[in-house]
Amino acid sequence: MKSFYGDLKLGILGGGQLGRMLIQQAINYNVTVKVLDPDREAPCRRLCNEFIVGHLNDYDTVYNFGKKVDMLTIEIEKVNVDALEQLEKEGVLVYPQSRIIRLIQDKGLQKQFFKENDIPTAEFQIISSPEDLQQSHIPFPYIQKLRRDGYDGKGVYKIADESYLEGAFTEPSLIERWVDFEKEIAVIVARNDEGEIKAFPMVEMEFNPEANLVEFLISPSTLPFEVQQEAEQIAIRIADTIKIVGLLAVEMFLDKSGRILVNELAPRPHNSGHQSIEGNVVSQFEQHLRAIFNQPLGDTTCLSNAVMVNVLGETGYQGPAIYQGIEKILKCEGVYIHLYGKILTKPFRKMGHVTVVDDDREKAIEKARYVQETLKVIA
Amino acid sequence: MKSFYGDLKLGILGGGQLGRMLIQQAINYNVTVKVLDPDREAPCRRLCNEFIVGHLNDYDTVYNFGKKVDMLTIEIEKVNVDALEQLEKEGVLVYPQSRIIRLIQDKGLQKQFFKENDIPTAEFQIISSPEDLQQSHIPFPYIQKLRRDGYDGKGVYKIADESYLEGAFTEPSLIERWVDFEKEIAVIVARNDEGEIKAFPMVEMEFNPEANLVEFLISPSTLPFEVQQEAEQIAIRIADTIKIVGLLAVEMFLDKSGRILVNELAPRPHNSGHQSIEGNVVSQFEQHLRAIFNQPLGDTTCLSNAVMVNVLGETGYQGPAIYQGIEKILKCEGVYIHLYGKILTKPFRKMGHVTVVDDDREKAIEKARYVQETLKVIA
Repeated sequence: MKSFYGDLKLGILGGGQLGRMLIQQAINYNVTVKVLDPDREAPCRRLCNEFIVGHLNDYDTVYNFGKKVDMLTIEIEKVNVDALEQLEKEGVLVYPQSRIIRLIQDKGLQKQFFKENDIPTAEFQIISSPEDLQQSHIPFPYIQKLRRDGYDGKGVYKIADESYLEGAFTEPSLIERWVDFEKEIAVIVARNDEGEIKAFPMVEMEFNPEANLVEFLISPSTLPFEVQQEAEQIAIRIADTIKIVGLLAVEMFLDKSGRILVNELAPRPHNSGHQSIEGNVVSQFEQHLRAIFNQPLGDTTCLSNAVMVNVLGETGYQGPAIYQGIEKILKCEGVYIHLYGKILTKPFRKMGHVTVVDDDREKAIEKARYVQETLKVIA
Repeated sequence: MKSFYGDLKLGILGGGQLGRMLIQQAINYNVTVKVLDPDREAPCRRLCNEFIVGHLNDYDTVYNFGKKVDMLTIEIEKVNVDALEQLEKEGVLVYPQSRIIRLIQDKGLQKQFFKENDIPTAEFQIISSPEDLQQSHIPFPYIQKLRRDGYDGKGVYKIADESYLEGAFTEPSLIERWVDFEKEIAVIVARNDEGEIKAFPMVEMEFNPEANLVEFLISPSTLPFEVQQEAEQIAIRIADTIKIVGLLAVEMFLDKSGRILVNELAPRPHNSGHQSIEGNVVSQFEQHLRAIFNQPLGDTTCLSNAVMVNVLGETGYQGPAIYQGIEKILKCEGVYIHLYGKILTKPFRKMGHVTVVDDDREKAIEKARYVQETLKVIA
């Protein structure tokens, strides 16, 4: 069998920041990497052995790309799964497996999977046509989500009362009981082909109640041990049930009554694991490589408190990115900047992230606030 | 002024592993990197914006390469300094400065610099012709070193007694009193253009007395505080005296009477700092970038005990490299593999390194021994 250090060719579907950070780690193992992305200026463009411009949803493009490699992985779910299925039949290793990507691409299937497997999740109803909405058994307010292609808040619509029904999506969707949650939490778990499974310690997201936006990700969580243990067990149970090979990010809500509800899955490295680069013994990227190459999984222990801030394009600016405040931030100790190599900024575009590491959790949060106020991406 | 995150073009002279690890870090700052190296299969070949094949000693090649960038740095000293000097005159930022590379390229000038500046170093004599050797005032045994182009043990000859004189180098050289040393130690220091200076904690090299080879690098040192302080002060004093911009690695001997003697300087990232990637708050590569871009220098504190092992080509094998034992090593916790992407192995070629991190120093050393016995590069 080909070994991953040297002669095995790894293809990545998607050339964004997740692929970029995966490549940064793969360099340490001499992995030969090819990347497919529609954007010729994608963050991975200069860091791989071959960069191919092409559409991830096009059967032929994905199939032909896959025929040039020994193993395929993804950094985005929106890819042509039929091509992946065919490639699997022809002997290409596809991790995560095509059936898992198919499951996760469709939020309806994903929710049904949770239900069938007793994974706790918010009550939901599949909506095939606008008429279904009229007969919903879920009380207002509720959330309507498109079954497909929702991303970063797109494809989600809050229906507060009857008057909102007019603006509802008409495409296949699901509606979900409104969860009045206390915290958003996440666990990233990895599984290799031998069935070894390891979870990263649970992280919490800190909300800005004014902007209703995730401001920081904090690792590890300081929620009660039982909550952390339960969240970890849920994530492990999902990975074990679907027999994924690779990383699985499990986003969850902790509601005000203390119940954990699974929100969404992502079968790949995830924004909620970026702090692991500096904050844990192995990073999520190292762990993903180990999992897909069927190597022993690494130690996920936290080394310190780590707080991650997304660096987003400022509102009001669009065009070639200019970064302000980097020098000020570099004066703080334990602050790690990761820019994603994106040429153009636009409002709320993820242009990078910063991880702050500190033995004192409150100090780490304080520094993270300073980073957020100081580092600006304008044009 | 151009900022380093985005529009500034950095050129690196040399495309080996030091350049490779520098690029891995530079990715985080969106640095545009061009690399010049004579080997079209050099470790940096796939990781930069432009890779140019050409000789580092050729004036025109270096000059033309330098004209395409805003800033030049090196990962090897053996480069054409006249071209660098001309480029400096024409406004290209060259860090380390050409005068420093010129000083360090010549071991004779380097030793004279130590003498003139009261930097403790082994007694020496400049040798211009074979006749000088006959009139040496240094007693046997002594070491003869070529003034130029010595590297990794090449260009060094031990003259134990008169009978060895016949085999002595005839090129310009120096001879040095034999130091019966207790330990080889090193301090890496960084200085930015504003004059800020920071040293990494001192490291020690563990010798294998049988093979007479550095086996491990251990960070931090457990030698007495006064020794560490003195070594650090010597390194800082040198950096401050020559006003280097960038990293300066200072290799020293601690002799059996407890004296520190400076052996050699390297004005760039260095093998004795690789453990800083996982073992210190900032790595030597991050620090070099901060220094040459005149940013605030980072915190050099050790996070843990870190032991570094070089991964060398096995004797008896030459050709396309095959790595054995990686899976076994990945089972150990706190073990970080860095392969350098070299296609061909040969005996003692540096093919990678492994850093072992452990809160318990003895355990870290034990694991490093296991790594050394287990990881083999054959062909």
